Amino acid sequence: MAAKKSSPLKIIPLGGLDGIGKNMTVFECGDDMVLVDAGLMFPDDSQPGIDLVLPDYTYVLENEEKLRGIVVTHGHEDHTGSLPYLLQDLNNKVPIFSSKLTLGFIEGKLSEFRIRAPKFREVKGGSHVNLGGISLDFFSMTHSIPGALGVFIRTNQGTVMHTGDFKLDQTPIDGVTPDYAAISRFAKQGIDLLLSDSTNATVPGFTKSEAEVGPNLLHAIKNAPGRVFVASFSSHIHRLQQICDAARKCGRKVVVTGRSMLTNTRVARELGYLNIDDADIIDAFDIDNLPDDKIVVMCTGSQGEPLSALSRMANGEHKTLSIHEGDTVILSATPVPGNEKAVQQVVNSLAKLGCDVWDKNRALVHVSGHGSQEELKLLMAMAKPTYFMPVHGEAVHLRAHAQLARKMGIKDDHIFILDNGDTLEMRGGIVKRGTPVESGVVYVDGLRIGDTDPIVLRDRQKLANDGMVTAVAIVSLKHKKIEAIEFSGRGVSFAIDDQFSEDASASIMKTIEKGKFSFTSSGSDAIRKAVRDSLSNFIWSRTRTRPMIIPVVMEV
Amino acid sequence: MAAKKSSPLKIIPLGGLDGIGKNMTVFECGDDMVLVDAGLMFPDDSQPGIDLVLPDYTYVLENEEKLRGIVVTHGHEDHTGSLPYLLQDLNNKVPIFSSKLTLGFIEGKLSEFRIRAPKFREVKGGSHVNLGGISLDFFSMTHSIPGALGVFIRTNQGTVMHTGDFKLDQTPIDGVTPDYAAISRFAKQGIDLLLSDSTNATVPGFTKSEAEVGPNLLHAIKNAPGRVFVASFSSHIHRLQQICDAARKCGRKVVVTGRSMLTNTRVARELGYLNIDDADIIDAFDIDNLPDDKIVVMCTGSQGEPLSALSRMANGEHKTLSIHEGDTVILSATPVPGNEKAVQQVVNSLAKLGCDVWDKNRALVHVSGHGSQEELKLLMAMAKPTYFMPVHGEAVHLRAHAQLARKMGIKDDHIFILDNGDTLEMRGGIVKRGTPVESGVVYVDGLRIGDTDPIVLRDRQKLANDGMVTAVAIVSLKHKKIEAIEFSGRGVSFAIDDQFSEDASASIMKTIEKGKFSFTSSGSDAIRKAVRDSLSNFIWSRTRTRPMIIPVVMEV
Repeated sequence: MAAKKSSPLKIIPLGGLDGIGKNMTVFECGDDMVLVDAGLMFPDDSQPGIDLVLPDYTYVLENEEKLRGIVVTHGHEDHTGSLPYLLQDLNNKVPIFSSKLTLGFIEGKLSEFRIRAPKFREVKGGSHVNLGGISLDFFSMTHSIPGALGVFIRTNQGTVMHTGDFKLDQTPIDGVTPDYAAISRFAKQGIDLLLSDSTNATVPGFTKSEAEVGPNLLHAIKNAPGRVFVASFSSHIHRLQQICDAARKCGRKVVVTGRSMLTNTRVARELGYLNIDDADIIDAFDIDNLPDDKIVVMCTGSQGEPLSALSRMANGEHKTLSIHEGDTVILSATPVPGNEKAVQQVVNSLAKLGCDVWDKNRALVHVSGHGSQEELKLLMAMAKPTYFMPVHGEAVHLRAHAQLARKMGIKDDHIFILDNGDTLEMRGGIVKRGTPVESGVVYVDGLRIGDTDPIVLRDRQKLANDGMVTAVAIVSLKHKKIEAIEFSGRGVSFAIDDQFSEDASASIMKTIEKGKFSFTSSGSDAIRKAVRDSLSNFIWSRTRTRPMIIPVVMEV
Repeated sequence: MAAKKSSPLKIIPLGGLDGIGKNMTVFECGDDMVLVDAGLMFPDDSQPGIDLVLPDYTYVLENEEKLRGIVVTHGHEDHTGSLPYLLQDLNNKVPIFSSKLTLGFIEGKLSEFRIRAPKFREVKGGSHVNLGGISLDFFSMTHSIPGALGVFIRTNQGTVMHTGDFKLDQTPIDGVTPDYAAISRFAKQGIDLLLSDSTNATVPGFTKSEAEVGPNLLHAIKNAPGRVFVASFSSHIHRLQQICDAARKCGRKVVVTGRSMLTNTRVARELGYLNIDDADIIDAFDIDNLPDDKIVVMCTGSQGEPLSALSRMANGEHKTLSIHEGDTVILSATPVPGNEKAVQQVVNSLAKLGCDVWDKNRALVHVSGHGSQEELKLLMAMAKPTYFMPVHGEAVHLRAHAQLARKMGIKDDHIFILDNGDTLEMRGGIVKRGTPVESGVVYVDGLRIGDTDPIVLRDRQKLANDGMVTAVAIVSLKHKKIEAIEFSGRGVSFAIDDQFSEDASASIMKTIEKGKFSFTSSGSDAIRKAVRDSLSNFIWSRTRTRPMIIPVVMEV
C-alpha cells in the first residue's frame, strides 16, 4: 500500500527521550507504519517494587492495522525488552527485522514467555526491505554488542536516518566497521532528518576502540597469581571474545556462570559470533580439577546486582563457585547510573576476602559502546542532515547533542528536542511539530501490567520511610461507642506494647468522646478518619515520626 | 593522673572503618581516655526512613570517668555530627579541643540542640595539651575545610600520629600548608603507630591543589551571559572564598541561599575565615534590582538533595529565587557515592530549563579534599611509622592503603586492618591486637535513638517493594467461626474491591473450615497465622506478588 500523497511521514518517539531506556519510535506514513525498537527500562529508587518499566504503546495497538514491521537495531534490553509484552498485545503476527544475533537473543527471551514462532526476518548491513510506502535500508554500525544496525528510511514525504546506538570503532573485534560508504551514499541522496544516539553527548573526545581493552585484560589475567573472575555484560560478545582469547593465551580454561551469561554465550557460539573451542571451556563443577592459575571465570554481576553470580560468589552464597584470597576480580564494565553503591558494596566484599580487584579506574578494562562528541559531530558531518532530532538520552544529553548540532551548522529551528509522545511531521522534506499522542510509562509488577498507580508508588515510599500502624476499632452501634481498639505495626521504630496500646486507645477515645459522631453505619467513615488523625497526632507527639495509619472500623 | 606503668595504650576505633562516615576513635591509657572525633553517617538505601546513623559509643559512656577530652580534627559532620547526642549522654562536661572554625561550626550545631555552654578549648597547629597521661600535639593539615588538624599522641607506652582527613596542598587558599616540619620532628622522636586517612587510597597520583579550581570558576563565571548559580558544600570555605573572589573580579554581587550555606558563611565570616565585603553580598530578595550578569548565587544542593536550594530552584519551588534559560549552573562538588542519580536528576531539570551546566567533567570546578596514593606514601615517608593502621574508608580503601604501606616497607604483621570495635594495645612501643569492645551502629529515627531493630528496616524494605494488606477477622467464640473479614491494602498494584474481598474471604474461610482450629482465646494465634498464610497464597496465585500480610483477629 502506498501512502496517500497528502499524508505526512509521522515520527513519534514513544520512549527513549526521558532517560536511557525503553526506546521505541513510530514511523508512520499514510496507511503504513514501522516501529523501530521496543525496549524496556529498569526501575529506579522512585519506583519501589516495580519489576520493569515499559513505554506506553497504546498508539501502536490502536494503529495495529497499519503496522508492517518492527525493526530492532540491536539486542540490548533497552531496545528489545518490551517485545514479549507488545507481541502478546498485538492481534496479528508482525514481522521483526533484525540481525542474526539480535534475533537469536530475542528468540531466547520470547521462549521464556512461551511466545512461539514469531515472524523473524533476518537482515544485515546492505539489506533493503519495502514495507508498503516505507522502504528501509539497513547499514552496519559498531556498538557494545555485535550485529548493531542503523536504518535509512525512505518515504514519499522524505527520508530519515536512525543511527541506532553506535560508536565509530575503526578496529571492532569482528572487523565489521560502521558502513561509512552507505552513510555517504544516503547523504548524497539526501537525509532530511537524522535521529542520533545521545548517550555520550556530554563526553568530549572520541570513545576508545573495543580493541584497546584486550591487551589490558590480557595483562591483568597474565599477572594474576590465582583464579581470575571477569564480570561483564553478558550480551557484550566482543568483550567475552577478548576475555576468552586472553584466557587461551595464558593457558587458562574458561568457566561460564550466571544465567544470562550462560544463555548468551550459548546463543552467540551457536550463531558463530563467539569463537571458543569446546576444549577451552570447562564446567563450573570441574573447576577444582585444575590449578587456580589455569582458570578464568566469566560471570554476570558487573552492576552489583545482589542475586548475580559475582555477588553470590563474593558473599559465599554461590552454589558451585567461591572467591578466595589471592583471586583476581576484573570488573570489565562501568556502573550504570544508580548502581554505583551496589557495585561498591561488592568491591568491598571482595576486598575483605583479600581479592585483587581491577576496574576501569585502575586500567582500561572497559570502554563505552557509545560515541563521544567527536564521533557524534563526525556522523553529522557525513550525514549532512537538514533536520536533527537527538534521541536515546536524558534531558541533559539531548540538549548537549542539540548544541553539537548547532556547532555543525544545523539551524536552531531545524533541531527538535522532543518528549516521549511528541510528534514530528514531514511533508516534502519539511519537518514540523505535530499533535502529541498518548504516551507514558507502564509498570510491570508481578503479573500486573499497566495499572500501577502513582499513588501506589507514593504509598510504598511512605511505608518504606515511616512504616505503618493499623488500628482496628470495634464500634458497637448498639452501645454507641468504641468497644475496643487493637494496634499492630510494622517498620516503626517504637514498640507497640501494652503501654502504647493503652495510651493510644485513651487518646483516641478522648477524641471520639469530644466529637459528635453518629454511631451508625453511615457514620463509620467519620469515625475512621477521627481514629486515623488522632492516632497520627498521638504518635507524632511521642516519637516525632508519622507512620502511615491504616484505620479499620468494624461494626458489631 | 599518670597511666599505670602496666596499662597499655588502647586504640579503639568505634566508627570510621566500615565506610566513609561516623569517625570516632578512643585512645585510652590507664585512667585517662581521649576521644578523637565524634561523627555521624547519612543513611543509605538499606536504611529506609532513618535520619542519621551514629557509632555505638557505649564504651565511651561506660568509661566516662576516664574521659579527659574530645579532640575534633575538623568541622565535617562525619567528624562532629554525633557530638550533640554524645554530649547529652555524658554526665559531665568534657572539654572539646579543636580549631576556631571547627568549634564555631560545632557551636552552631549544639545550639540547634539547645546544648548550652559546652567546654570549648581552642587549639591550633603547634598547640600542646596534657590530659593526664596522654599528651597531644596538634599540627596543621590541609583539607576541604579550613582549620583541619592532625594530632600526635604521646603516652608512656608509645606514640601515635593521627592524620585526620588530609591532602598535601602546597598552595592552600589560606596559605596554611601541612606542617611538614612538625611531622618530621615527631618522626624524629619516633612514631610508633600511624593512623592515616584512606579515602583516596585507590586513586593514583597526587590530588590537585584547591588553588587550581579558582581560575576555572573564574572562567565559567566570566563567560556566563546571565546569572551564575554555584552549588558547593557549605563548609568548604576555601571554595566559597574562591567563588566570592571570582564574582568580585567579574563585578558580580553574591547572593547566599540554603540554610547551611547561610549559617556557615555567617560563622566563617565572623571568625575571619571567609573574606567578602558586606557591599559585595546582597539579599536574595534584592536580586531583581541587579542585571542578570551582575549576580552569582552561592547555594546548597550539590548532592541533589531534594529539599536543597538548588533542587528547589531547578523545580521552581524556591521561595525567592528561580533559575531560567540563559542562566549558568556550576556544580562545584562531586556526588558522594549513592547520590549520583539524584544529582543527575537535578542536572536534567536544569537542562530542561535551558541552563548551561558545568561540572567537573567539563572543567576542573572541583578537586578532592583527600590525598591520593602519592600523598599517602609521602606522608608515610615523612612519618616513618613502625606500625600502620589505615582509617577513614571502606574495606577496599583500607586494604588499598595497607598495600601502599607494604610498598613503603612496613612489615605485613605491622599493618593492622581493624573493624569498628576491634582494639589495638601498645606496650613499650609494641602493638598487638586486644579484646574487641561493644560497637555497632545506632540509628536516629525521629525522636528515637538507638533501638531501631534490623527487623524494622527489613520490614520497611518489604513494605516498599511489595506493599501490605491488612486482614481483620472477626471471630465469634460463641459460634465457633469467623463472622467477617475486612481487607485493606496500601502500596499494592491490584485493586482491593468487592470482588477481591469476596474471593479472598472465601479462600480464607475454606482454609479455616478445613483446619481444626480451636475457637478460644488461646486458639487465636493459630487462626491469625492461618489467615495470613492463606491470604498470602491467594494473592500470590492471583497476582504473583507477595505483599506483607497483617492479620488481626478480633474476638467477639
